[in-house]
Parts: sequence; structure tokens; C-alpha cells
Amino acid sequence: MNIDMIRAAADRARGAIRRTPLLSAPALDALAGRRVFIKAECLQHTGSFKARGGWAAVSALPQDTPGVLAMSSGNHGQGVARAAAHGDLPCVVLMPADAPQAKIEGTRAWGAEVLLYDRQRDDRDSLGARLAEERGLALIPPFDHPEVIAGQGTTGLEIAAQAAEEGVARADVLVCCGGGGLSAGIALALAAEASGLRVRTVEPRGFDDVALSLEAGERLRNAPGGTTLCDAIMTPMPGRLTFPLLQAHCGPGLAVTDEEALQAMALAFRHLRIVLEPGGAVSLAAALFRRDQIEGTAVIAVASGGNVDRGLFARALAASGDPLAGPMAPI
Amino acid sequence: MNIDMIRAAADRARGAIRRTPLLSAPALDALAGRRVFIKAECLQHTGSFKARGGWAAVSALPQDTPGVLAMSSGNHGQGVARAAAHGDLPCVVLMPADAPQAKIEGTRAWGAEVLLYDRQRDDRDSLGARLAEERGLALIPPFDHPEVIAGQGTTGLEIAAQAAEEGVARADVLVCCGGGGLSAGIALALAAEASGLRVRTVEPRGFDDVALSLEAGERLRNAPGGTTLCDAIMTPMPGRLTFPLLQAHCGPGLAVTDEEALQAMALAFRHLRIVLEPGGAVSLAAALFRRDQIEGTAVIAVASGGNVDRGLFARALAASGDPLAGPMAPI
Repeated sequence: MNIDMIRAAADRARGAIRRTPLLSAPALDALAGRRVFIKAECLQHTGSFKARGGWAAVSALPQDTPGVLAMSSGNHGQGVARAAAHGDLPCVVLMPADAPQAKIEGTRAWGAEVLLYDRQRDDRDSLGARLAEERGLALIPPFDHPEVIAGQGTTGLEIAAQAAEEGVARADVLVCCGGGGLSAGIALALAAEASGLRVRTVEPRGFDDVALSLEAGERLRNAPGGTTLCDAIMTPMPGRLTFPLLQAHCGPGLAVTDEEALQAMALAFRHLRIVLEPGGAVSLAAALFRRDQIEGTAVIAVASGGNVDRGLFARALAASGDPLAGPMAPI
Repeated sequence: MNIDMIRAAADRARGAIRRTPLLSAPALDALAGRRVFIKAECLQHTGSFKARGGWAAVSALPQDTPGVLAMSSGNHGQGVARAAAHGDLPCVVLMPADAPQAKIEGTRAWGAEVLLYDRQRDDRDSLGARLAEERGLALIPPFDHPEVIAGQGTTGLEIAAQAAEEGVARADVLVCCGGGGLSAGIALALAAEASGLRVRTVEPRGFDDVALSLEAGERLRNAPGGTTLCDAIMTPMPGRLTFPLLQAHCGPGLAVTDEEALQAMALAFRHLRIVLEPGGAVSLAAALFRRDQIEGTAVIAVASGGNVDRGLFARALAASGDPLAGPMAPI
């Protein structure tokens, strides 16, 4: 893994991947106690940064690849399915049966075949490996894959340029973290192009395996039995490829509660007019509610996705958490 | 009014106004029966395009102006208040008492003094003129003002460039229309820079004074007593300055129902991950639900704002209108 792979992924992505905006709002600055910039990857094609890694991995496959298989909580599947559809490649996505409806339908809309498994009972990795073998498909894992990490890293190239445009040379860059593909890719890109910007992983409490692993200096697994609304980032442990990159480049990891993620969603609705899913909002939640654990006069939060069912979004809006909001308007 | 004023407004706005993205989603293309591009002005500073006109008008004032007064349903007030705050100018905003809470609070957050009037009982124009006179403030009207129109027209310069990047040379450009400032400004800009792009105004049914006036060839007033959820664009008749520009450059006007605007909000939530207010969603609603009245293989919808109270947004999500949505997820 090196910066050249990320630059090559950015070249291949030209015209296919959006340069998402860096947003801000004075009300969020006031809450955070410093300038807050939000890299709005929810506005990426497919509604999350996963379109980047999917594009990078599929566009790097040999010409005669018969098809692809992705294992995904729902966003990676859409990213791979979109890239496969552009190349007329058959695509199968293995997804947990309890994934949000928006993600299952979104993946099918790209023409992919969606197979559901039981998150508690089935072993996703062995199911995926068997399926790929049986059908002769190229397996594109969600994070532990060099081209996937390189694709996610293109977010970091944009952050380096956009932070410079805003006059921000030093800042923590908070990244929503599951297996660590986005965090590792951005960290690699920033190490090469904006050394004053430092990645900090943000996870849901109870799924903060990366934070604990960084502290311990070895890959640790989450305690079993936890639950979170952040379906996109409930991975059990850091990746084999991603962890050494995170160790080399990142500051201490952060963790937030589901309630804080819901509050961040409501604040992003109101002050940025963007839709975030819980797992895509933990970075903003950390910027707003962990201000004592963050350094510097500016912070950048990567809002990584916005594929959320309507019921859960309405719940976030109804939560009384927005400290700036007036009373709920009557319906 | 001419294109040079728009270009000058764009120069003055550099660094202060966002170049908002042009978004798209395959599901919306399928619904519209053609490619649909959404110019997401809800992502503009203050949550609507009104930040453009406010900036243009305030930045064109003489140095010794003692302060400004804006009359506004809520978005123009925020745009003027933001520009005034940047210049340390006192700002008073005259707003209807039934304006959305988000708009009243948003305007106050920029340090403006908000005065509320009764939409039924009071005459906004004479109230505003008297206040400006008494306090010696420069009056910045919401649409019938050359610099305001020039500022809104900067949206058109961006659309011309972004359509070219997408390879779109001919298309209807649907614009949410109240008094016609945004529509007139964009129409002027496109006439100069992208003559294959034609503005079509979109209004709420019952408030389609611009469409009726364009058809009649003279400025007509809406029938009294109508109601709409589209608070941002319930103006009674076209402007004196804006109407001749609309006559010169626009195709026939379109109108949609409140229910269609709510459906468009739900679809934008799901497929674009942006937050629209009803008055900012009528253009997308027309793209999706008036396909027989639109020409060409592509259409551009200017989604003009996203300042909406949580209750009304939740109502839009709960409406059964999303033809692609699965069942509402349980809360």
C-alpha cells in the first residue's frame, strides 16, 4: 500500500466519482468550540464513500473477470454493484438479513443479486469464500483489500486540497470507522499530502475495537453481544491490512453513543441540510460531543454515508437532542 | 439588468458563496423518464440560494450605509443577515409571524433583529418602507432589485458550466419560483452562456401567478385565500423587474401540488440524501410528475432551499408517496 495506488485510483475514478463538498455552519462551530468542516460523503454516488472503493477494486480487475462478489452491511455492496453495472459485470452481494431496507433495495437497483445471511448464525467470510469459489466470482472484501483501501483513500486527496482552500493546515480528521478501510486510506493520503492533518477513528461505543486495539498495540475483538444503530460500522475487529496503517498514522480512537449519533443526524439535518445514517454521523458526533478529546482550532469530520430508513431518520429528528432546536412543529 | 452585473456579483461572491453540486440518481432518472440533474442550493450557506442575492445586494451598498432591512418569508432574511454580519452592519428582518421556526431562529442566529408581522392583516411593503425610513436603513427587497437578481443569477453561471461538464447542451431548467428573482437571474445567465438551456418556472398550484401571467402576457395576481405548504414561494404576483425578464427568456410555467412537493422531498431524502423544504422541492416535483410537459432527454431542477421544520419533514417522509420505497421501518 502506498500513495501511488491512491493517486492511480483517483485517476481511474475521474468522471465516475464525485468530489463531495466540505460543508460548515456557524451553529456547529459554536457547539464544537472550534471550526468544524464536514466532508459530505453522503452526497457521493450510492450515498456513501463505498462507491470509491468499489470503483477502485472493480476497475483494477483483469478484463476477463466473469463477475464479482461483495460481502457488505449494505453500503459496500452498493458501491461494488454500481461499478460492476458500469462494466456490465454480474454482481452478487452477501448482506445481513437485518440490513436497512434502503440498502437492500439500493443494491438491487444496481442490478445486483442480493443474498441474505443471518448475522448471528452464519459465518459471512466462509459463506462468501464458498460462493465465490462455486460461481467463479472475484471476491471484493469490504475493507481488507489494497485496491479498496486505495479507493477510499481518494477521499483523503480531496480533504487535503479542500483543507488547504479553507486555510486549515493542522486539524484532527475524524473518520467513521468499521474495519478501517476509509480511515487507513485517508491516513495514507494525508501522510503524503497534508502532514498537519491527523486521522482519528470514531466508533460506536461497544464496537470500539479499533480504539482499543490502537491503545493495546494489537488487534483486539469487541466483546460479543453488543448492539448499535450504526449498522454500517459494527465490524468485530480491525483488518489485517488496515490495522498496521492505522497504527502508523492515526491518533487515539474515539467512541460515541447511539444517542449522540442520532443527535448529530438531527443537527446535520438542520444546519447542513444533509441526510446522515447513524454510522455516518459518529464522526460529527465526536466533533460536537468529545470536544475535550480533540486538539486544534479546526476539526474535519468525514460524514461517511446517508443510507437510512425513514423510520429511523424520523426517530433521530424526534429525539430531543438538538440543543439549538425550538419545539417540534405540530404535524 | 445584464449579464455583466451577474458576472460582477460572482466576482464579489468569491470565497463567500458555495459552488453547490449538481446531483443525480438513477432511480430519479427512471421516474422522470429522462436524465435529471438537481442543483442542490439547499447546500448553500444559510440553506438556500438567497445567500447569493443577499451577498450581492449588501456588497454593492455604499461604504457608509448605516444598516439594512429585509422583508422575507425567511430565506432572504437569512441571506441578507449573513452578508450584513460579515460586514458588521446592523440588520433588521421583517418576517411573517407564521414563518417556520427554523427560519426565524436561523435569521436570529446571524445576529439580525427579527420583527414579525401578521400575513393576513398587515401590509408588508408599507411596514417595511416605514421602518426603513424611521431607522435610516437600506431596504433590500426579496426579488425586485437588480443586485438581488444579479446575485441569484450566479446560480445560472454555475449551471451553465456544470451542464457542459455533464455533456448536456439542451434542457429545460426548472426553477422554484416566488417573485421570480432566481428564475430571472438564471434565465439571464443562461441566455448569455448556455442558450440551449431554457428556464421554466415551477410554482405551487393556487400560487401560479407567474405561469398565468406568462400565458396572459401581463402581470396577474393569485386568487386570494389560497394556502400552501410552500411558504417560501407564496408571493401574490410577479415582480415589476422580474416579469419582463421572465417573458423574454422563459418557457411556459409549471405548477405542482403540495402533495407532489412532499413526495419530491421524500425522494430527495432517499436518493440524494439532501433535505429540501416544500418550496425548494417543487422543481424536482415537476421533473418527476410533469414529465409530459417537459422537453428533451435531460432536465435540470434547481432545488432552491432546505429550511424546514422537523415536524413537516417527518410528515413528508411518512407520506406514502415514494413509489420506490419499501414499507416504513418500525421505530
